[in-house]
Parts: sequence; C-alpha cells; structure tokens
Amino acid sequence: MIIGFIGFGKVSKNLFDLIKSDDIRFVTSLENRSDKTVENVRQCGIEILDTVRSVAENSDIVISANSPKSALDVAKEYGKYAEGIYLDLNNISPDTTMEISRHVNNLVDGAIIGKIDSDNPVIYVSGEKADELLFLNEFIETKKISDRIGDVALLKLIRSSYTKTLSAILIESVELARSYDLENEFFDIMALTEGDEFKEKSLSRIRNTLSSSKRKAEELEEIIDYFDKNDLVMVKAALEKLNR
Amino acid sequence: MIIGFIGFGKVSKNLFDLIKSDDIRFVTSLENRSDKTVENVRQCGIEILDTVRSVAENSDIVISANSPKSALDVAKEYGKYAEGIYLDLNNISPDTTMEISRHVNNLVDGAIIGKIDSDNPVIYVSGEKADELLFLNEFIETKKISDRIGDVALLKLIRSSYTKTLSAILIESVELARSYDLENEFFDIMALTEGDEFKEKSLSRIRNTLSSSKRKAEELEEIIDYFDKNDLVMVKAALEKLNR
Repeated sequence: MIIGFIGFGKVSKNLFDLIKSDDIRFVTSLENRSDKTVENVRQCGIEILDTVRSVAENSDIVISANSPKSALDVAKEYGKYAEGIYLDLNNISPDTTMEISRHVNNLVDGAIIGKIDSDNPVIYVSGEKADELLFLNEFIETKKISDRIGDVALLKLIRSSYTKTLSAILIESVELARSYDLENEFFDIMALTEGDEFKEKSLSRIRNTLSSSKRKAEELEEIIDYFDKNDLVMVKAALEKLNR
Repeated sequence: MIIGFIGFGKVSKNLFDLIKSDDIRFVTSLENRSDKTVENVRQCGIEILDTVRSVAENSDIVISANSPKSALDVAKEYGKYAEGIYLDLNNISPDTTMEISRHVNNLVDGAIIGKIDSDNPVIYVSGEKADELLFLNEFIETKKISDRIGDVALLKLIRSSYTKTLSAILIESVELARSYDLENEFFDIMALTEGDEFKEKSLSRIRNTLSSSKRKAEELEEIIDYFDKNDLVMVKAALEKLNR
C-alpha cells in the first residue's frame, strides 16, 4: 500500500510517525513547498516524488493536510489524479467539503480530534469509502461517523460552537468573580463539582480565546451563518462577548 | 457546646448526622413545624425545646436551614435572641444576606456546595466569626472565604450564573447536533476532550434545567438584576434561551 501526503506540515509529519510500518510505502513531493515542509520531509526520510500530481496518481490513499484556505485549491488541482481514497484532513466547513467532493472521486471527510502530538489523537472519518480507512486503528484510533460526506465537518462545527461559547461563558464568569475579588474562590468552588482540572483547563481556554479573539470571532460568524436556520442564541451572544 | 437548628429539613438532618458527637449537644424545636420536620426530628432523636426562641437563646451556634423565602423572616423573628453564632445556610441572595445581618449579631454567611447527602459536601462560610466554625472540619469540609458577610452568597450567585448558562449552551448544542442526527456522535466527540462523564453530566444538566425551566429563568433574572452593572451578555442569552 502507498500513502501519499499533499502537504507535509505538523499534521502530516505526526501522522507519518504514528502510521509508519514496513507494509506501507509513504510518498510526498517538495514541489512548491515551504522551507519548513522541506525540513520536515528531510527529517522523516520519507520518499520524495517529483510532483504533487505523481503523489496523487500513485497513492492508494492521498492525505491532504494543508490549510483551510488552500484545501479547495489543492483538491481542484490534484483531486482528479487520485484514483484511490482522498482523505481531506483540513479544518474546513461542510460547504467546502461538499465543494471538494465535486472535484474528487473517492473523498473521505476527516478530522483529527485532540492535538495530533498528544497521547491519544483520534481521526474521525465519514463518507462511503471511510470503511477502507479503519485499518488505521492499528496505529491511531479511527472512527467512522457515517457514509455521508460532510458529517465530520458538521460535527466539528457543532463541537466548535460548543467549545467557543463555553470559553465566552468562562470569560464572563471569571470577569464577574474578579470584579468582586473572588476569582480564586470561584475556581475553588467550581472544582468541587467540575473536577480538579477546572481551573487549569478554564484558564487555558480563556487565554487561548483571548490571544486570538479576532480569528475566534470570525469562526463564530461562520458558525452562525452556516446554522442560520437554527438561530443560535448562545453562539450569537458569544460572538458579541468576543467583539467587546 | 450546644448547636441549635431552626428548621429541621433535609439539610439540618444530614448536618446533624455528619456532626453528631459526644461533645456536642444538639437542640431544635417543633414549634410551628411541618409533619415532615416532626418526623425528621423523631428519627434523629435530637433534643426538643419548647420554642424556637429558646433554641436561639440557648445555642452557641444557631443554624438556620429553612427556605430562601423564609430566611429573612426567621432571622427577623429569632436572630435577636441568638447570643452565639447565627449560621445562615439558606440559598439566599447577597442582598437578603445583608438585610439579615441587620437583625442578627454574629451572622455567618454559609452555603453547602455539592449535595448534602453526597460523599463530600463542603460548607463555605464568610464573616468575621467564620473562624469559629472551622472546628467543623473534623466532620465536614468547611472553608472560610473571607471576613465579609455576603461573599459566600455572591460566590454562590456567580457559580449559579456559570452553571445555568452552561446548561443553556448544552441545550443549544444538543439541539443543533440532533437536528443533523448527530447527537450521539456529538457526545462521543466531546468525551474525547471533556472526559468520559461528559454525556451523563450534560444530559443530567439539561434534564434538570428543562424540568424546572420557569424557576431557572427566574433565578437567571435575579442574577442579571443583581449584577446589572456587569452587563452579563452570556447570562442574558441563557435567559432568552430558557424562555423559548
């Protein structure tokens, strides 16, 4: 079996490290890649083909792990050459996923949940061909959601609506507690019912949100637009909170 | 030492069971009490005085665990007879707590966090006399927050603003997931980062909120009114969500 990577950033590199075995041949290409990617490729010693097109043509599974912005262009340019499965692991919307499926024959919609370099990342996949990726369970937990392309992207978006809105509540509660000089007491009292990790996790969420609040607000806007008919009261409030 | 209970419902009964020891004399009164209270008292075999007034007069620590609605009336009627500490454990607002302190000499503002009949309830206390209750740590974890009367009530309100708003997000997220037939998948994917108990805890929160949504909405209104100057965007959205 041949697995080909289009893009060889952090996700691809970590996947390669997790999956590598004697039975699988791994290929990628340095065509038009960044210095960082070239360095990743050299470090891994993965086989290099001349062109991205030949990676697509020669692989049983092509993995596209690039960036949300480039995912569609990559699929448009190289998807047509892929005869095997095309696994898209970019953090893209359900709409972009459906658009990509128009340019790719055997698309599998995928996402990595949890940090790829953590102890236990999980790959979620959906699409009719997703079953053929379940052999990956030997290396990394791989869960098939459904046969429907777009379900993983949808689930990721719903998850994101929850976690980002949760961060907005945490910001509001901690601001409130702080205004009464009761911040530490708030964390202590919450830990009694929410668990010992509450403080650490909450502060990490708040920092993470505030350090990229503009991007997080944009993501919330996308969620609100996408789920327009669901009228997400809490998510809209979270956007208002972040915009302050 | 004498500990006297005004009111002998579930909280008092459980506290009595936790604290009872040979060194402490416990008293209460059946004056104007409900059948349920009379039954609780008989079961415990606690010493019965003729009047609530004599309970207040004779105790080193008077514990008022009645209902939020009756807390102020009880304090007005009997607080003046208490020479020892008056521990108010009713679930009351910071304003009511301050009002009660005008009728009681040695008020300690208290709350039980976690269910009283669980393995590990904790008593939070604030007020200048709160130190004198720390001996209770021998029987039940007892934490002093500060010397300021009202801090425990405030903290409880901030905690409540967080937990009720969290429930509103959960309701919204689960509705959203369900509308795409991805409810179970939502719980599964969240459990990866939020812990195995996420589903059970979330469903319990949602049930709990929806089964008493009118009361929860009223409590949210009280929170919004009390923290008016803090302009709680998320809590206001939670109220809107519950009112739908």
